[in-house]
Amino acid sequence: MAAASDQTLIDGVLGPAGPVQRRAIAKTITLLESTREEHRARADELINTLLPHSGRSLRLGISGVPGVGKSTFIESLGLFLVERGHRVAVLAVDPSSSVSGGSILGDKTRMERLSVDERAYIRPSPASGTLGGVAEKTRESMLVAEAAGYDVVIVETVGVGQSEIAVAGMTDMFVLLQLPNAGDDLQAIKKGVMELADLVVINKADLDEAAATRARAQITSALRLLGQHGNPMTAHHDAQLWHPQVLQLSALKGVGLAEFWVAVERFRELQTQSGRLASRRHQQDQAWMWERIEAGLKARFRGHPAVREALSATSADVRAGRLAASVAARRLLDLAD
Amino acid sequence: MAAASDQTLIDGVLGPAGPVQRRAIAKTITLLESTREEHRARADELINTLLPHSGRSLRLGISGVPGVGKSTFIESLGLFLVERGHRVAVLAVDPSSSVSGGSILGDKTRMERLSVDERAYIRPSPASGTLGGVAEKTRESMLVAEAAGYDVVIVETVGVGQSEIAVAGMTDMFVLLQLPNAGDDLQAIKKGVMELADLVVINKADLDEAAATRARAQITSALRLLGQHGNPMTAHHDAQLWHPQVLQLSALKGVGLAEFWVAVERFRELQTQSGRLASRRHQQDQAWMWERIEAGLKARFRGHPAVREALSATSADVRAGRLAASVAARRLLDLAD
Repeated sequence: MAAASDQTLIDGVLGPAGPVQRRAIAKTITLLESTREEHRARADELINTLLPHSGRSLRLGISGVPGVGKSTFIESLGLFLVERGHRVAVLAVDPSSSVSGGSILGDKTRMERLSVDERAYIRPSPASGTLGGVAEKTRESMLVAEAAGYDVVIVETVGVGQSEIAVAGMTDMFVLLQLPNAGDDLQAIKKGVMELADLVVINKADLDEAAATRARAQITSALRLLGQHGNPMTAHHDAQLWHPQVLQLSALKGVGLAEFWVAVERFRELQTQSGRLASRRHQQDQAWMWERIEAGLKARFRGHPAVREALSATSADVRAGRLAASVAARRLLDLAD
Repeated sequence: MAAASDQTLIDGVLGPAGPVQRRAIAKTITLLESTREEHRARADELINTLLPHSGRSLRLGISGVPGVGKSTFIESLGLFLVERGHRVAVLAVDPSSSVSGGSILGDKTRMERLSVDERAYIRPSPASGTLGGVAEKTRESMLVAEAAGYDVVIVETVGVGQSEIAVAGMTDMFVLLQLPNAGDDLQAIKKGVMELADLVVINKADLDEAAATRARAQITSALRLLGQHGNPMTAHHDAQLWHPQVLQLSALKGVGLAEFWVAVERFRELQTQSGRLASRRHQQDQAWMWERIEAGLKARFRGHPAVREALSATSADVRAGRLAASVAARRLLDLAD
């Protein structure tokens, strides 16, 4: 019976756009997000069945600190795209949402017009677990949206912490929104987010044009200095192929969106022609597989009965200087063998 | 017989300074660095026996890009310290040394005068393995040097890659050497090294005083901007207790060393009085234990017969889009169960 109902979900996702498909997508993602053991096996089956139908979207990661205008930007961009015949899915990675009760995309009224548009699908961040767990569910939801024919998948994340690296690791292009403020760029450089960016957008550029122009020059020069050594795990672009661009934009007024999309499409073309898109996705998949393996190994280790029994005493011995940390690690590893 | 010879090593390390102690230290560290399985158990015993005698040094991490003058700085500092009655051990973390044949401290003639001084002990970087493995051996060597009564342990690392984080994670104070160049600081910020620094030293400040003064102002302002959110895993200082300082120095001419040491001692005093030193070392030990556990789990997983058999086919399935990365991770984890 479970199998029959899963077939209905698959047929729904792969079927024509409309209310039936929307419900099937929602139910499928809910199943993926379930933490119940028996759901996990079904979810794995579903993902593998949908997998051959996925991958045909442009995966766009978008980040920026609170207040930069992410929702307005995504709503404007989403409406711009659906007007031009695209189907747009908006997903999110926000591991803090379980604490805060859904800080990003939790409230669909944040994107009032896009959320009621039939050509768009908005799903809030999975609200439970570690960053790795949350990112995994978003990554799987992306495959579902792609199988359903959404050709632009936007993955939003908050501009704090490590979640940007996770999002850059699941998208084809990573866009960083910045305010026309000095210092904003330094924070992004420091957190290693600036070097993930394929494109930097200075939003709210209309508020202070002089400041926006200064910020643009500053960020352009920072990107040039950073450009030499990209992080190979997350770099989307090849320095010889693409130099990250800095654009000015006003999402609220819709000014600059067309130029933004031209830049995205140009990047996409270069990526596809050079074979970089396929190799990038392969690398992401491999890195992702290992990320999840490591998380699983650690969880299993912590749950091992002998380790659980010995861990606090061993930690106390290390703390008290009775046992060297490296020796403690080896002893605990032996217990879990 | 092995036990008797290990007792001789222990007696030698804990015994009076002199040629016998030097040989015992060298032999003990060689044993720690051995990759042979039967040596590992002996090394663990040795470490635990020496552990109660360790911990009484000031652990100083020093980093900087090639060309910044690290060797000259460490030699000058070392000689400065031994003249004042200190015993100085110099260790290194350089995971690239196995490839390059020993790029840092491999050649003792780099520190000609310090290396022949009986009050100093210089040991090149362990030349094999991953960064984690190299760092672990250096960490253990540090305990040996401390047990032998060296009261200043300098751990040098190259200014490239992740090794700075490892060194900051095993020292009480992390010093970043910089050139009086614009742009040098941006690279350090980008790599996350600047925020590890408790003290930034602009070396070769005598070459261009105007440039050094500019660099100092620039770095001071960057440190202020970065100060708000330190990395709790590696931060040595408490923002309320200590603001990272920027000093100008000429190691070649010996100018500025006394001021440098005054700053180090002041930091040390604040660290000790506030209890931050002890809590910092405890955190480092815990983090280190988990770092080694994770590395061990991963190595064991890769070596598991069922995983080894399935890994390449599974990776190929992921690559070909037949298997989702997350599903592949779960399947491989099940195989190793």
